[in-house]
Amino acid sequence: MVAFQDWAREQAGYMEGVLAELLPSRDTVPHRLHGAMRYATLGGGKRVRPMLALAAGELTHASRDRVKIVAAAVEAIHAYSLIHDDLPCMDDDVLRRGRPTCHIEFDEATALLAGDALQALAFQLVSAHTLCDSANAQVELIRLFAEACGSRGMAGGQAIDLANVDRQISLPELEHMHMLKTGALIRASVLMGALCGKPLSDAERGRLDHYAKCVGLAFQVVDDVLDCESNTEKLGKTAGKDLNANKPTYVSLMGLTQAKAFAAELLEDAVASVAPFGASATRLTELAQFIVRRDH
Amino acid sequence: MVAFQDWAREQAGYMEGVLAELLPSRDTVPHRLHGAMRYATLGGGKRVRPMLALAAGELTHASRDRVKIVAAAVEAIHAYSLIHDDLPCMDDDVLRRGRPTCHIEFDEATALLAGDALQALAFQLVSAHTLCDSANAQVELIRLFAEACGSRGMAGGQAIDLANVDRQISLPELEHMHMLKTGALIRASVLMGALCGKPLSDAERGRLDHYAKCVGLAFQVVDDVLDCESNTEKLGKTAGKDLNANKPTYVSLMGLTQAKAFAAELLEDAVASVAPFGASATRLTELAQFIVRRDH
Repeated sequence: MVAFQDWAREQAGYMEGVLAELLPSRDTVPHRLHGAMRYATLGGGKRVRPMLALAAGELTHASRDRVKIVAAAVEAIHAYSLIHDDLPCMDDDVLRRGRPTCHIEFDEATALLAGDALQALAFQLVSAHTLCDSANAQVELIRLFAEACGSRGMAGGQAIDLANVDRQISLPELEHMHMLKTGALIRASVLMGALCGKPLSDAERGRLDHYAKCVGLAFQVVDDVLDCESNTEKLGKTAGKDLNANKPTYVSLMGLTQAKAFAAELLEDAVASVAPFGASATRLTELAQFIVRRDH
Repeated sequence: MVAFQDWAREQAGYMEGVLAELLPSRDTVPHRLHGAMRYATLGGGKRVRPMLALAAGELTHASRDRVKIVAAAVEAIHAYSLIHDDLPCMDDDVLRRGRPTCHIEFDEATALLAGDALQALAFQLVSAHTLCDSANAQVELIRLFAEACGSRGMAGGQAIDLANVDRQISLPELEHMHMLKTGALIRASVLMGALCGKPLSDAERGRLDHYAKCVGLAFQVVDDVLDCESNTEKLGKTAGKDLNANKPTYVSLMGLTQAKAFAAELLEDAVASVAPFGASATRLTELAQFIVRRDH
């Protein structure tokens, strides 16, 4: 088995190719829109969600040709959420992945539409390819995906995040917000990747779901820690942004030491949850460790 | 058979109830986001797309409990497109359906997210309910829907529309733009409504598709005529907007008389295309007539 770092590098390279192929070409009308969709999706990003999907697919021995579609679809949703999140009426940010944000490189209207079109593309991908042994399972996969994107998933989390600016909120409120804003799509990435392969028992699915929830939350806690500790150059996006914007974070509510301890706890919980799967969960375990221990 | 006007009024009332039930409640967190989604979707609109779906469902004897879901989903997409279209970085409009636009009534960030969440809701609706006799057909329905929304459908049409401001374009270019911007979702409404019922032969599906394309284009031609001839009060949205924005329209390219004649031709073509279906196509025929002869 290749070392995790090599595996991760290989997957990231593989996903770059998959996305480049599945995104509409710049030569297709409307050129500028397709250019913006490609700009925002290709050439950067940690590809955490696609890797989670691919790793979950290994757990259920799913064919890579299926899981890659799911992985591309969740990354398309992630890219759209970043484009819209960076718009002037939202976080108003100019830097993303070390490059100008989409509305700076193009213009606001094109960025808005590129995000809209990326969301539609995601649902096109998961409906235009055979992903599961039964079409019933595929409809269920699409439902799970749409819920994760909607007002009680990612978009809802963004709305709660907006409402929290300059407000004092409790830890459970912060956790609820992040479960939606980041957690929902991470959870969907894991579950959808697994759904491309052999069916899991309810108990197995429950364990995988618990893993996904822990990883999703840990991802956000670590993001808050890095936003506080790291610098803009390393992050490739503006550091200290949330604290400066008076947004509540795990660091502002728990303190830095406690937030780090909480991330470590979530990691332990995630790893324990998939341990019964044995060797087939190796990549999931390593991904959880990577997510918690990363420095950008 | 009840007269068309009564049928249409009944369907509009029915759809208001269906949408009110299917949209997340204002009492559900995040309240403001759900409030904005409901504000933009309920209490107005001609409900042309839902009616087309319902009428197409009559053609294939589809159960109303299925078609209403499709009708709500296409209206959710329509509502999202209007919210985003009205944003300052797009058409920057303050009036829609006789009321303040969503970003005026709420705020820009909430309007952006409400649009995003309505798109996700649409795909949630078509995946969370049984819509076709086979799950395979339902996956196909979802694919058709996603394509109609994406960069080679509605969002792509919006992008081409943006690029056309202050440009001289040809009639075929204008037609291509509208086939995407308005036509794609209208076509999807018709085909998806029919897909909820008994399967059509390829020839029948081709005829229905031709009807949908003619109606979609006619809808836009009439919109351009009304934008030129009607007034803001009657339209419930700012009149003369496209002409003032130096956007090419059928009226600016063909002249008013020719544009009206073109709409009449498209109507005739649409009606002829579904005539072989006999009485089951009555509502589709009447809807085409309504779309071309409306005064707002």
